[in-house]
Amino acid sequence: MRVLGIDPGLRNLGWGIIDVAGAKIVHVANGICHSAPGTGDGDLALRLVSLYEQLTAVIRTYCPDQAAVEHTFVNKDAVATLKLGQARGIALLVPAQAGITVGEYAPNAVKKTVVGVGHAAKVQVDHMVRLHLPGVVIAGADAADALAIAICHAHHMQSAGRLAQALKRAAG
Amino acid sequence: MRVLGIDPGLRNLGWGIIDVAGAKIVHVANGICHSAPGTGDGDLALRLVSLYEQLTAVIRTYCPDQAAVEHTFVNKDAVATLKLGQARGIALLVPAQAGITVGEYAPNAVKKTVVGVGHAAKVQVDHMVRLHLPGVVIAGADAADALAIAICHAHHMQSAGRLAQALKRAAG
Repeated sequence: MRVLGIDPGLRNLGWGIIDVAGAKIVHVANGICHSAPGTGDGDLALRLVSLYEQLTAVIRTYCPDQAAVEHTFVNKDAVATLKLGQARGIALLVPAQAGITVGEYAPNAVKKTVVGVGHAAKVQVDHMVRLHLPGVVIAGADAADALAIAICHAHHMQSAGRLAQALKRAAG
Repeated sequence: MRVLGIDPGLRNLGWGIIDVAGAKIVHVANGICHSAPGTGDGDLALRLVSLYEQLTAVIRTYCPDQAAVEHTFVNKDAVATLKLGQARGIALLVPAQAGITVGEYAPNAVKKTVVGVGHAAKVQVDHMVRLHLPGVVIAGADAADALAIAICHAHHMQSAGRLAQALKRAAG
């Protein structure tokens, strides 16, 4: 199973892809979709189009089976939250249009899965992502977060799988 | 010139289309794209796909030349603002993907243009939209707001056009 993790942002949208086979996870690719602010009228709309196209290209190239997006809703202010929401809309839309189910995880759930505690520092998350995926070259902080989200989703899928198997054995 | 106004929302996204010829504006169509909340995983992503498809169908049917979206960023709380942002991302993306320039207007600018004062009540906006577009049948409050945004954009385009003509005469 191939999992795409997305850390949404308007200027930098991080993405990370891992392969999951049983308890084993392997790094596939990671990167950052950029959309720099311009000055013209209709600029925001064009930035969203650019993110849409970059993320569509990632999905076409790597064909993930599942996707997961960080579920943040608290931000420093309303303007920042609205910007995040717009980028997050694209992050949810693009995989769903490709027929991929999109999971959502709160930042604390991601940290708890990857580091072991819900209030881990960013540097700890980055460190644990590198431990989970030996030899990985990470494109930047947003790509590291995206890989953490993909790892979180993989763990949740594995737990759900084990539960389903246990229930099957119990019923059989 | 045909103008599409959009009042973004996750549950109800209002749209309204007017034709503008000189100082004359004529109603073309209006409606509301709905996306009801479900319960499943990946539900939000599917709602955004549904809004995307409905709005794409509106643009394919009516072929507007210009689009305008309300630029709200203050909302009751961060959760509501994030939801609005996600819907707004779709509202900006879809016309831009069709090659249509998307203008943005603050709610007070829309009210000032349509009613004459920036702090007009919703009922006044609705009333003035009906006065501007005699005989119009409006699909709901969000569609009325969308028509107000389209009217606001038309007025701004007319002012910009008159200014350009005046500058041309001054230069000639």
